[in-house]
Amino acid sequence: MTQAPSALDLAQALIRCASVTPEDAGALGVVADALSAAGFTVERPVFSEPGYPDTPNLFARLGREGPCLVFAGHTDVVPTGETAEWRHDPFAATIEGGMLYGRGAADMKGGVACMMAAALAFVERRDGTVPGSIAFLITGDEEGPAVNGTVKLLDWARQRGERFNHCLLGEPTNPGTLGEMIKIGRRGSLTGKLTVLGRQGHVAYPHKAENPIPGLLRLTTALIAEPLDGGSAHFDASNLEFTTIDVGNTATNVIPATARATFNIRFNDDWTAETLGAEIRRRLDKAAGNSVRYLLDLQPSNSPAFLTQPDSFVTLVSEAIRAETGLTPVLSTTGGTSDARFIKDVCPVIEFGLVGETMHQVDECVAVADIERLTAIYGRVLDTYFS
Amino acid sequence: MTQAPSALDLAQALIRCASVTPEDAGALGVVADALSAAGFTVERPVFSEPGYPDTPNLFARLGREGPCLVFAGHTDVVPTGETAEWRHDPFAATIEGGMLYGRGAADMKGGVACMMAAALAFVERRDGTVPGSIAFLITGDEEGPAVNGTVKLLDWARQRGERFNHCLLGEPTNPGTLGEMIKIGRRGSLTGKLTVLGRQGHVAYPHKAENPIPGLLRLTTALIAEPLDGGSAHFDASNLEFTTIDVGNTATNVIPATARATFNIRFNDDWTAETLGAEIRRRLDKAAGNSVRYLLDLQPSNSPAFLTQPDSFVTLVSEAIRAETGLTPVLSTTGGTSDARFIKDVCPVIEFGLVGETMHQVDECVAVADIERLTAIYGRVLDTYFS
Repeated sequence: MTQAPSALDLAQALIRCASVTPEDAGALGVVADALSAAGFTVERPVFSEPGYPDTPNLFARLGREGPCLVFAGHTDVVPTGETAEWRHDPFAATIEGGMLYGRGAADMKGGVACMMAAALAFVERRDGTVPGSIAFLITGDEEGPAVNGTVKLLDWARQRGERFNHCLLGEPTNPGTLGEMIKIGRRGSLTGKLTVLGRQGHVAYPHKAENPIPGLLRLTTALIAEPLDGGSAHFDASNLEFTTIDVGNTATNVIPATARATFNIRFNDDWTAETLGAEIRRRLDKAAGNSVRYLLDLQPSNSPAFLTQPDSFVTLVSEAIRAETGLTPVLSTTGGTSDARFIKDVCPVIEFGLVGETMHQVDECVAVADIERLTAIYGRVLDTYFS
Repeated sequence: MTQAPSALDLAQALIRCASVTPEDAGALGVVADALSAAGFTVERPVFSEPGYPDTPNLFARLGREGPCLVFAGHTDVVPTGETAEWRHDPFAATIEGGMLYGRGAADMKGGVACMMAAALAFVERRDGTVPGSIAFLITGDEEGPAVNGTVKLLDWARQRGERFNHCLLGEPTNPGTLGEMIKIGRRGSLTGKLTVLGRQGHVAYPHKAENPIPGLLRLTTALIAEPLDGGSAHFDASNLEFTTIDVGNTATNVIPATARATFNIRFNDDWTAETLGAEIRRRLDKAAGNSVRYLLDLQPSNSPAFLTQPDSFVTLVSEAIRAETGLTPVLSTTGGTSDARFIKDVCPVIEFGLVGETMHQVDECVAVADIERLTAIYGRVLDTYFS
């Protein structure tokens, strides 16, 4: 058995693959080669869906017994934008001033490299055996439509009888400093489109028309007049944002026929998409009375709110973080969505990775020291989990 | 002197000219020929303005003494739309079932024909002389930009020392029955564009963004929360209509940077554009407080509210109407704008014409009997005015 590759080596190898969704550009090969060499069984299912590009995924497992700890992540990255705006080639993995630069350095090739390096070193320390199992769920479709990625990979694994006990997803969860934040859940997301119906006419003869805009103002104002809730034990208050209002009438002497507003709600575990939809309709009906005619189109949501109870697994990860960084991580449920929304149906999942400050930006980068410390944190998680 | 042509003959001759703004197609020639034959001095100035088509106009006067009664109107018409939708060729001036069909029959070639026929018959009855003066202000640019029309024709006449005492504008003022409505003024029109400024961001991180939509809802709601006024002696209450609200954000996970609303106010003689603009700003400032940043763009208005005091001239026209129709016309200030907004700066102006029910529609038409009755009404006005 050769010595396991370092996390930095793996991160550089991954960044050098221009794996902008849905391209793989060799990225999953880097993962496959390293894990195979350490004795993992590696499979690389490609998933298809009409209207979407085929996307490669990777599943690896070492050991057949429980408990099974899963590391999850993605090797696809968002586009670079104008490469001329980058000081460092986004796919060169340049190290300068202690920072590793490149698209995906933070989100999340760096995280994938750290979990691989930690697992490989752990297996090496245990002479190739694990008292249980370690698995990897790595997708190439997280930043894109996420149709041929983790959601199908989990189905595929379930059909093969795979069972997982806990999952650690290596998304960049720390806003500014490694160790400050674990994510133990995410708010749900619900989008609604509201249309108020009126009757077109001339502004000089308003009695012959029915302007839908005052009705829209009344309904939209009613939606945000009262908070949805006051937050829950581990979640902020649910929040509704109007993302657009559009009438599209260019004539200043014409009363329009319809007016439309779109809103998005990030909601906590006080609600399901169904109970929240009912509350929205209740508020609209009350404001509309008999005088405003409206249509509400609630988009089907695949982002429910979820929480991984802060039990012993969360404590284990928190203590590994504290031991390596001296920080006690906040247990957060803030921010956007991630593949954890799919994994939570299979086993408890928490998210902890690098510092996300530069993710999706030009000159995305992470500290080389953070890569080393995150690898050490993941290594401690493995040691404690299997002790 | 030959016998004066009938109003119906003149109306048909005018309708047969396809004078869709800015085309004249011979329409003003019909007017010029008939008035010249009766001894009127006729001039046909063409006005120009960069960016607008040149447009022909007509000024005619018989007599140099006062008082001078002016008939005003336009010979241009709005487009036909799909001619296939018309049962009658819009430029054939077909008579069927007692109705005269054609574009402009109501708005307002019919009215121009009636005023001409009435004046010609009056002059004929007086053997070619008038105890005072009769004038005609006829434009070919009322339905279009109205830049090279009445507003310039009035300037042109003023520069030549023309003085007018009263004006009768023959727009179709009757909603359904000849004789039911005189217009003695018009509301003003003011258009405003409101922009609320925010800061773009991700809906999952609203504290890092500033959604302009709640501010727009607050400001727009404040604008219509209280009536502008309760109406005045001869005017309805001023009315604000929002004509559009637009954000134009297609992403349901993005908080937009700006939100815009446009409104149009039809206002009565309680206000000028200036005092009304100040009231709008007062309401916006109060609603905005220190928390909403907004821009207000009030479009320059050339449509102030105006009223022709219902004095002896209005009484004279009302009594002529009652004598011919048995109806006492309502003195109204409702509806859209007209060239009366320019003429009111020169002399008292009131509007009375045919039934406007079909104006701007397919198969525009007027009753032949109404053409005869309106001619008789105008004839009575002349008899009384010069008696």
